[in-house]
Parts: sequence; C-alpha cells; structure tokens
Amino acid sequence: MALRAFTDQEAPLAAQLVALKAAAGSHSPSLLTIREELPDLEITVDACFISNPYATQLFLDYLKAELLDTGAIRDVLEFYPSQNQVIAAYIAGHLGIDTESVFVGNGAIEIIQAVIHSYASTRIMVTLPTFSSYYEFAAGHAEVVYFHLEKEREFRLDPEEYLAAVRELQPDVVTLINPNNPDGSYIPFDDIQAILAGLPEHVTAIVDESFIHFAFEDLNLDIRSIIGECQRYPNLVVVKSMSKDFGIAGIRAGYAVMSPDRIKQLLASGYLWNSNGLAEYFFRLYCREDFLQKYDIVRKQYILETQLFYRQLEKVPGIKTYPSMANFALVEILDGVSADDLMQHMLVRHGVYVRTCSDKVGLEGHFLRIASRGLRENQLIIDALNDVLSSAE
Amino acid sequence: MALRAFTDQEAPLAAQLVALKAAAGSHSPSLLTIREELPDLEITVDACFISNPYATQLFLDYLKAELLDTGAIRDVLEFYPSQNQVIAAYIAGHLGIDTESVFVGNGAIEIIQAVIHSYASTRIMVTLPTFSSYYEFAAGHAEVVYFHLEKEREFRLDPEEYLAAVRELQPDVVTLINPNNPDGSYIPFDDIQAILAGLPEHVTAIVDESFIHFAFEDLNLDIRSIIGECQRYPNLVVVKSMSKDFGIAGIRAGYAVMSPDRIKQLLASGYLWNSNGLAEYFFRLYCREDFLQKYDIVRKQYILETQLFYRQLEKVPGIKTYPSMANFALVEILDGVSADDLMQHMLVRHGVYVRTCSDKVGLEGHFLRIASRGLRENQLIIDALNDVLSSAE
Repeated sequence: MALRAFTDQEAPLAAQLVALKAAAGSHSPSLLTIREELPDLEITVDACFISNPYATQLFLDYLKAELLDTGAIRDVLEFYPSQNQVIAAYIAGHLGIDTESVFVGNGAIEIIQAVIHSYASTRIMVTLPTFSSYYEFAAGHAEVVYFHLEKEREFRLDPEEYLAAVRELQPDVVTLINPNNPDGSYIPFDDIQAILAGLPEHVTAIVDESFIHFAFEDLNLDIRSIIGECQRYPNLVVVKSMSKDFGIAGIRAGYAVMSPDRIKQLLASGYLWNSNGLAEYFFRLYCREDFLQKYDIVRKQYILETQLFYRQLEKVPGIKTYPSMANFALVEILDGVSADDLMQHMLVRHGVYVRTCSDKVGLEGHFLRIASRGLRENQLIIDALNDVLSSAE
Repeated sequence: MALRAFTDQEAPLAAQLVALKAAAGSHSPSLLTIREELPDLEITVDACFISNPYATQLFLDYLKAELLDTGAIRDVLEFYPSQNQVIAAYIAGHLGIDTESVFVGNGAIEIIQAVIHSYASTRIMVTLPTFSSYYEFAAGHAEVVYFHLEKEREFRLDPEEYLAAVRELQPDVVTLINPNNPDGSYIPFDDIQAILAGLPEHVTAIVDESFIHFAFEDLNLDIRSIIGECQRYPNLVVVKSMSKDFGIAGIRAGYAVMSPDRIKQLLASGYLWNSNGLAEYFFRLYCREDFLQKYDIVRKQYILETQLFYRQLEKVPGIKTYPSMANFALVEILDGVSADDLMQHMLVRHGVYVRTCSDKVGLEGHFLRIASRGLRENQLIIDALNDVLSSAE
C-alpha cells in the first residue's frame, strides 16, 4: 500500500520536513523550529506534543492575574530564584513528605541525567520501548541492557518476568516509566509494589511517573503514585515531570523523590540554582488548595476526553490502537504504509503533526504516537487520519 | 567601635535575618525568601543583587510587545523549547563563531558544574576570593588549591606569579573570573592572553566573563572578551552568564564557548533540553540588531552611573572601596564593625540589602559587596551607609 503522492505544491514541504527530522536526532523538531524553518506550513494540531492544554490555560490564568496584571513578573524575571531545597519545601508540602526527600530539577530530564550519571556505574536495564534519554544518557557511564515489552501482549509488563530479568542481567539501575512512553501501557500499583519488594536492595529503581496523572484504576480517576513507598525502599527514585499534566513544558519544572542521602550527595556538588523564576512560581501554586482544586477538574476533563479519543482511534480502519493510560496512544499502521510517510502526509495535507516512531528502538513495525489535544483537536486528528489512510492504494 | 543598638522594634527582625542567612549556606537568601519569611521588613534597595536594572526593563519592553500583547507567551510556556544546539546557533550568530563551539546552559551555574565535574579530575586551582561554587562543586571530584589575590595589592592578578603557581601546584583545571567576584578586580586583555600563552596545554582554563560587559579599557567602553581566543587555545573554556549584564537572573540563561570536542562529549550524555522557553526567547533577541543597539545604550548608561557610584563610595568615611570594573564594589569596613552587623543595620533601618562577605573564603577583614542599582537607588545606599556608620560609637 502507498499513500496518494504529494502534489507539486506539497512535495517540497515534505522534503524539508524529512531534513528537519534528521537534524533533530532521536527526538522531534520543536514546533518553534518547524514554524521558523517552514513558514509556509500551517500547523493546526501538534499531536506530537503530549500535554494537557486545559492545564496550560489554568496556569496562564493564574500567571495573568498574579504576575502580569500586578507587574510582579518583573521580580520573577529579574531576581534569582530560590535555591533547590527552598523550592523542594513547596513540593514536599504538596506531597506530605519531608523536604529532604525532594530534589528539584530543571525539568525531569535534568534529574534523569543526574541519577543515571550518579547511580548507573556498571549496567542499566531499560524497558523497551522507552524514552530514548534513558539509554542515551548512560553513554560513557554504564552498559545498557534491555527488557522488552511485546506488542503481541499489548506492551504489558509482567512483574515476575521482570524480576527474573533483573536476576539474570544483574543491573545496578533499572528504569520504568509508568504509564510507559511511547506505548501508554500501565503497570498497576500492586504490580509496581511487587517489583519493589522483589528487587535486590543494591539495585536503584528509577520509576518515572511523568504521565501518572492521566492513569486511573477505577472511575474515581484517582492518581496512584508510588511516591509513598520511597521511605520504605531507599533504592527507589521517583521522577516526575510537570510538563505533561500541567501543560508547561516551556517552563522546565520537574522533581524527584528519593532518599535524603542521595539528595545530599547530589546537592554537595551542584544543582543549587537549577530552577527559573517561573518554575518557582509554578511550584508555589503546586501546594495551593485553590489551584489544585481547579487543576483536578481540568485533569479529569482531559482524561475523559482522552479516553473518548482512544475509542474513536480504535475505529479508524487500517491501524491498531494499543491500550493507553497516558495522554497519548501508540498506533500501529497495518497496511505497509511507513510511519514517516503517514506523519508527513498528515502534516502537509492537514496541518496535523504526529510523532513518528520510526526512530524508536524496540518497536518492530510502523508506529505513530498520537497525543490527545482536547475534543475539537482530537476530532481533527481523527478526520486527518481517516482522510490520509483512505487515500492509500 | 560598635553600631547603635537596635531598637526593640528592630531587634527581632535582625535576629530572623541572621537565621535566614545561616540557612542559605555560602550564598545570600533570595529576595523572595526574605520577603516571605520577613513580611514586616521593607526592602527598598537590593544591593546584594548584581544586575543591570535598565537591561531588565529593556527585556520587559520586548517581552510585553512581542509575547504578552500578542498572546505568543502561551507557546513559550506550553511547548518544549528547542534543543541545546538549536539555541547555540543564535548565540554563535551573535558571536560570529561556529555553533559547534557554543554550549548553552541553564544559567552559567550549570556550565560551571558541568565543566568542573568533567575536567577537574586531579586538582583545581581557584583564585581567591571567588564565587564559592568554583570550589564547592569540586567536592568529590578534585582537590582544590588556591591562588590568593591580596587586598594589599587591591586584588590585582600578576600573570607571571599566576603561571609560577600553576607550575608549582600542577592543577588540571584553573578558574579565573574577569572581572572577579566579589572584588571587581579586572585582568586586562593582554594579561589574560599572556596567561593563556603560558599555560601548559593539558591545563583547562575556565575563564568566567559573566561581568565583562561592565569592564572597559578605554573611554569607548568597549567589551574586551577573550572568546576569540578559544579557537587558538583548545584548553580555554569561556563561561558567560546573562543574568548580570542583561538583568534576567530569573530566566536562567548562560553559555560557554569551548572546543567542539568538549561540547560533543558533554552533549553525548545529556544537556539536550536544558533551556526554558523564555531563555530561548532571550537568545533569539541576543542576535537581533535592534535589541543589541538598544542594549548597548543601557549598558553604557549603567557603566557610567556605576563608576560615579564608586567615586561616591570612596568618599564615605570609615570604609575603603576597592577599585572595580564589575557592577559591584568590594568595601572594607575599617573601624572594627563586623560586616554582618553593618548588613543587618542597613537592612533593618534603611531597607538596603547589601552582601556581607563574612562567609567568603580568602577575605581577611570585614567586607561588604555592594551592587550598583541605578542612580536613585545608589544614592539611597550611600545615604544608608553614611547614616549607619556615623551612628557607630
């Protein structure tokens, strides 16, 4: 099968896109970069981009009322933000744990880098498919070995098989993302607990909960974070990005919960002023009841719309949509069309930007990762998918 | 000599201040922290804070016109900023060098941490007095040895003595801040060149030019950066904060210029998305002619006001003001009053916050570091100093 050929107008844009993607390595070029390099391309929906747009609006409303309308924004931009542990205290307040167990990062990505460089000294076991930084950042620090999730089992992780792999491969660090990126598979709370209980004490477990606010185990849509287990398991490091659930990727805010000893060690040689003024402002909101109540409404609204979107995706002919508890779904293209091709056609013909997974290690087949962007945008994604796929011949 | 005792009203505030400072370690508590912890204290001038307020206003004007009034701020906060080398390209454009020689940091502080952790493996030679992170971040990585600048010589660095110390102490990394923090002493361009020419090739030279925009060698007030020498000296790493000259400490923007090999090595295991959206926006301005022309005016205005301020400081009885090419001056209290005492009295009685140097390693005596904050504020600093010191008995 092949998609309808690009028109003479569309072809040059598609070629430029391929070049941009090649330059961005194992990640997608940012929207800003694409807009600047391809000004003729109109992007209607950025479904590469995995964040809750309603939460972004909530943050913008607070920002406008409290910083822009009051002029307080000047202080936020002009002065140094507070030190790591001052900001950690706000987060600890939100989580109901000790400040000494909280480490603030310049986005979760800085924390991933810091903990891999600090704790992976012999071998790191990474679950595949995954977010590529988990193995890329190990370069020069530790050997990387893999635990494969299989598409035939819809990427579900079996705790017993996982622990058997740990015994066999003997890593000093293991990484889990829950729900996993890019497939959205979810490890239930009880299974994570079983893994922690079965892991040798000397193995550091990095559990990345950056998408946990979108997952649920019953219809109350409650968040089931493993953070509460950090006190029981000093080998547990929970990493949390704020970019996805709060829709503020541009601010770079993240944190980790881990044993006070590990944090003391990290702070002894750096990470003192790694937050910016807006990140500090965000974390001050993060422990305010008024903000959190409003946030929980937009979180649940977004989950419901997201799950509705997945039901629509499941009905699109020519693709298989894998079950997801994240705010994106992994979609396999069944009829031989390549992921890069489908991505380019959706972007050039419909302005819908989806994440090709052609560069994802551990995914065999043609996969796209499609983010939920809210009711109206999700419908545009469905329409674009249906249109482009129906043109295949 | 002792300062007039605090009144019953002033005393509790002073005591709280001491506690806050103790909690902040070798750095000052931020203005935000003080405002929150001591709401009764009115801070009129923050002269701890070393940045050009006119440049802050210039940036705010651009931000308002281009991001706030247009609504483009949403994109900046919501989406991921570009990768390190995409932003490096803007800086390289400004500097007229190759992108491959530019490394972007989450503030200069992240770069200081990264280069010390990467290159200091045996011994690091730090010039004293200094910015404390230069030796603190070496903890667990390398032995720290010191090259002392002497107050009797007004902290001037002699290149030949410096090179002799390198031969004797055999460090693998040396650090220089030019102009130096906290004393403001300046190493002329020709002297830095002499040092670079005399350093063994295997010794990494970290030259921190975070205050170079305030220094000048003639009345044209031109900037004499050493960045142009990076191509000739692969052992040279030039670190540059944007916080001071552009007045945007809250944004966290910095960069370094060094050999492409070193940057490739750093990027191989991290630092991919270490900028936030506002930092990226700033660096886009940083290579725009319209912005740079306006910036150069406020830079020169600030230098002139700053040098005028130093002439006023020199006339205050009871203190000695050391020559400075930075935007702060180091002031020695001559009559036995301690720096902490003077700091507390100026803050509690006049709302003028100055940096006590009682925690600064390598400074013998009672020192304050006082930042230039613009004409009106500088006058308030002078008035407060005169008032508090004249009350000493």
